[in-house]
Amino acid sequence: MKTERKVLIEDTFAEAFSMYMVRILVTASTRRWALASAMEAKGLGTTAIFCPNEVGVEAEVNSSDTPDQRPGVLLMMGHPKIENVRKWVPRRIRHCILSVPTTVAFDEMPENLANDSVSIEGTPVQLFGDGYEERVEAYGRSMFRIPLMGGWFYVSERFRVTKGVAGGNIIVLGNSMPSALLGAETAVDAIKSVPHVFTPAVNGIFASGSKPKSSYPWGTTNEKFCTCIKDRVKNTMIPDGVESAFEVVINGLTLEDVKRAMKVAIEAAVKIPGVMRITAGNYEGKLGPHKINLREL
Amino acid sequence: MKTERKVLIEDTFAEAFSMYMVRILVTASTRRWALASAMEAKGLGTTAIFCPNEVGVEAEVNSSDTPDQRPGVLLMMGHPKIENVRKWVPRRIRHCILSVPTTVAFDEMPENLANDSVSIEGTPVQLFGDGYEERVEAYGRSMFRIPLMGGWFYVSERFRVTKGVAGGNIIVLGNSMPSALLGAETAVDAIKSVPHVFTPAVNGIFASGSKPKSSYPWGTTNEKFCTCIKDRVKNTMIPDGVESAFEVVINGLTLEDVKRAMKVAIEAAVKIPGVMRITAGNYEGKLGPHKINLREL
Amino acid sequence: MKTERKVLIEDTFAEAFSMYMVRILVTASTRRWALASAMEAKGLGTTAIFCPNEVGVEAEVNSSDTPDQRPGVLLMMGHPKIENVRKWVPRRIRHCILSVPTTVAFDEMPENLANDSVSIEGTPVQLFGDGYEERVEAYGRSMFRIPLMGGWFYVSERFRVTKGVAGGNIIVLGNSMPSALLGAETAVDAIKSVPHVFTPAVNGIFASGSKPKSSYPWGTTNEKFCTCIKDRVKNTMIPDGVESAFEVVINGLTLEDVKRAMKVAIEAAVKIPGVMRITAGNYEGKLGPHKINLREL
Amino acid sequence: MKTERKVLIEDTFAEAFSMYMVRILVTASTRRWALASAMEAKGLGTTAIFCPNEVGVEAEVNSSDTPDQRPGVLLMMGHPKIENVRKWVPRRIRHCILSVPTTVAFDEMPENLANDSVSIEGTPVQLFGDGYEERVEAYGRSMFRIPLMGGWFYVSERFRVTKGVAGGNIIVLGNSMPSALLGAETAVDAIKSVPHVFTPAVNGIFASGSKPKSSYPWGTTNEKFCTCIKDRVKNTMIPDGVESAFEVVINGLTLEDVKRAMKVAIEAAVKIPGVMRITAGNYEGKLGPHKINLREL
Repeated sequence: MKTERKVLIEDTFAEAFSMYMVRILVTASTRRWALASAMEAKGLGTTAIFCPNEVGVEAEVNSSDTPDQRPGVLLMMGHPKIENVRKWVPRRIRHCILSVPTTVAFDEMPENLANDSVSIEGTPVQLFGDGYEERVEAYGRSMFRIPLMGGWFYVSERFRVTKGVAGGNIIVLGNSMPSALLGAETAVDAIKSVPHVFTPAVNGIFASGSKPKSSYPWGTTNEKFCTCIKDRVKNTMIPDGVESAFEVVINGLTLEDVKRAMKVAIEAAVKIPGVMRITAGNYEGKLGPHKINLREL
Repeated sequence: MKTERKVLIEDTFAEAFSMYMVRILVTASTRRWALASAMEAKGLGTTAIFCPNEVGVEAEVNSSDTPDQRPGVLLMMGHPKIENVRKWVPRRIRHCILSVPTTVAFDEMPENLANDSVSIEGTPVQLFGDGYEERVEAYGRSMFRIPLMGGWFYVSERFRVTKGVAGGNIIVLGNSMPSALLGAETAVDAIKSVPHVFTPAVNGIFASGSKPKSSYPWGTTNEKFCTCIKDRVKNTMIPDGVESAFEVVINGLTLEDVKRAMKVAIEAAVKIPGVMRITAGNYEGKLGPHKINLREL
Repeated sequence: MKTERKVLIEDTFAEAFSMYMVRILVTASTRRWALASAMEAKGLGTTAIFCPNEVGVEAEVNSSDTPDQRPGVLLMMGHPKIENVRKWVPRRIRHCILSVPTTVAFDEMPENLANDSVSIEGTPVQLFGDGYEERVEAYGRSMFRIPLMGGWFYVSERFRVTKGVAGGNIIVLGNSMPSALLGAETAVDAIKSVPHVFTPAVNGIFASGSKPKSSYPWGTTNEKFCTCIKDRVKNTMIPDGVESAFEVVINGLTLEDVKRAMKVAIEAAVKIPGVMRITAGNYEGKLGPHKINLREL
Repeated sequence: MKTERKVLIEDTFAEAFSMYMVRILVTASTRRWALASAMEAKGLGTTAIFCPNEVGVEAEVNSSDTPDQRPGVLLMMGHPKIENVRKWVPRRIRHCILSVPTTVAFDEMPENLANDSVSIEGTPVQLFGDGYEERVEAYGRSMFRIPLMGGWFYVSERFRVTKGVAGGNIIVLGNSMPSALLGAETAVDAIKSVPHVFTPAVNGIFASGSKPKSSYPWGTTNEKFCTCIKDRVKNTMIPDGVESAFEVVINGLTLEDVKRAMKVAIEAAVKIPGVMRITAGNYEGKLGPHKINLREL
């Protein structure tokens, strides 16, 4: 703590791209059930490449700040293709929220950011009611309610969509695996103070990174950042003294949100002893429209 | 505790069906990372109907009992169709285990139960290595190792498959929502003492139940068990005094495993005050080959 | 949800008394370590009667809102006697915060409420440094730093004290144990949205309650609220149909804080099916100066 | 993983001493409540020096292996003086187990190790019943039951005591704080596979260490192991290249248990990159009767 250390922030940029996103508030009788539902909904959601889609928890919400005055968890889901969002948002709601004791699912997209929406009508969520479902006004909103064994399940009639920003990232390089890992963990914890963003990795940290143009459609390892084969890789990006690297990917509703999160992530990671450098993954500018320069943050 | 209560065990049966299953042991440097990886791999895994497949955590494993002497978590995944298992097991490993710091994925199917296998060769897991991966003998097993930013990822060369049993279940009926819920929770906790089984629901408990022959291919609510519409449903299965119902679904490697888990689940649930009845979901014998009579347990 | 239910709020009052309190912010490199430290410091802290003192977690704090920009947990400790506070606050800091990896302990009493303080000077915390400790300005505050194996431990030079309010409470009566328990749990979750209060019970819920004038100095069971012996107790307070009772005790920096927390607690608990009545524990007005009428809330 | 690394095990010994211990099994309706109760009972229990006493969680226990067929947690408590055990065991049970919803407290000392006992009769636990308590045979044991608001609380009539072994330890030295910390964490996780031992530190890891003969009765920092002042300390034990140290203290029912735990702890810690050395704390042979040589393990 309070020690002066010098960590090199590389002069590079993270390359971000557009992603259609929804923002769902899951509430339940208790924090525990809201969180359990959100974590199931988050699962198999680390990447849009061929997971169904990318999902992450944004934050817990106190009962004083939810429409039904119960504890909640904010969840975001996204995919670069809008069709995928239309397909998987209802499915995740159906299987990971509707099926869970005492939950309600609210659309929580900020009003000013919405420019499209996914309707629940005609999806497996509404149709699950088999005609017993009802369209109701509840909690000041237009909702469906679906009868379950455990009681009525309430769900917003539609979930608004924004064209957000995905792929913001930092890569933490350490003089040992534990240093890089703890550096990444502090970055993820710091990001929790920034609203409107999520980290799709498990606990926010990727051990694996993919390269821009893969020989294989589902992505292949970015060998230039693989510490364990740095002797075999020409043009390795791993400098001497670096023994490990982990990546924190950040998605958010706007470019500003992603930048803010990247900034606090860097500030947190560099405090950890053994963290040597911070860099970022990019695709030489060929992938996305957004370039986020690390040093400008 | 120790109070004598009378809970009616209905004279009915759970109807189970066959499911192809794998059993994966995820280890990591710490329990926390093994568990985080397992929970991501479990996500979006409550049902085979149109989740990618059904997944559940069987148990944590002490480091003394794993091949690499590190803490681990046993995970099971299954689907009625073998093609689905071949497709989604590698994907879940790729996105929910390979990508997570310090993990290893071992095949842990008991030798005597295996009658098929899913090969990792040629899947997105192996191909992620982009030629840098290696076939190695490690921890006394045939494995691949794939280079990542965070170090080598080791994974068994193949995951053996058994034809297991899915759809074992009990439905807990309570005089109020909390009674049925706590009854179901104690059932799930009791099941943790039975090896070779898993509960695919979130925290093991389903608020929703589907009916045998749905008018809709993805399943529709089983209105006969919906307490909130019992006045509107002819032939409701909800007796007077019952206000809520939750279901615990149990899948296992063998029929005996599922029966044993159902037995301890019932014994636990009936101890909870306010639990009125235990019943089970079945499809009038039309779905699966296995009928598990509650009273015989 | 959204069902209209009638729960009787009894026409009674909670009787609260004065307690000297400190408010400590524990930060650490990660949320996990801050929380682990806070939970150890909270332990053996359910009551001032003859636990060392009463302790509870108020809330987690994002890294953006702490002096050292790291994640934190707010902890409160109190006792009716100021000598006890002087004795046990340093001991809990010494054994439950100082000893924990990467932690810092900050005084976080709101400026306007402080009217006394506990100095760290001369206590086991400062003296642990054996002369190697230093008085420093850090994070804009006057602090000590003590050398440990794991690095420097920083701690505020003094922790300010307020004369707060303890013993606010509600008792949740249910038609079964699970109903009363879930009602109490939702009350505790709701209280998390109110700043400046804490609940000293384990997970915020007491299964036991003491009576005003005990035949024994350490408190004895309040038999009038014991459901399991209601047939043997004259003047039992347990009405017909009630099978279980749990108590949520609330302490806070001011009377207004405690009232606000009691209000949201009641509003949450009455939503749970099977909750029959809300009452409160009091000592017939003989114990404390504060009477908080339930119906006025 | 699987990398060959050389970590120096110093040629020294841990010096252990005798401690009177009890072993308590806390069961509850759910794992969650058993664990919450155990964690409260563990709190303020990192050291016998002037915490009330040392406490730690040994393991979770499946419902199939407990007397009341409910999930449980094994807890151990100890102190070098038997009077302290007689005083604080009943107090911790009274405030951290009795007060918690649905719990039962069983004596679980192995038969062959018991050579004394703490009676519950006449303690604040029994007297809490105020005459309504009863002596009963339950779960095949002699127990008291005490009436509470939430129902009967059952507790063993006496808790047997053994003269166990405390102060086994390893100190993990790392090339950075994160390396030493992760090394210590893997050691703690490994210890979970050894029965009859517990680690009293928060999450099992001490950032602070005391020295043998302190100038102050409550213990003072062991400056020889303080990395942050190694330049100011003559005869520092911190070699070049070591930047951080954490200690794992291990107590157990027998010397063999402690040795076994120390062995697996060392084997786990040395696997972590950045861990440089393993040493141990001793008091130059003046404190305790037991010397556990690291290299012999």
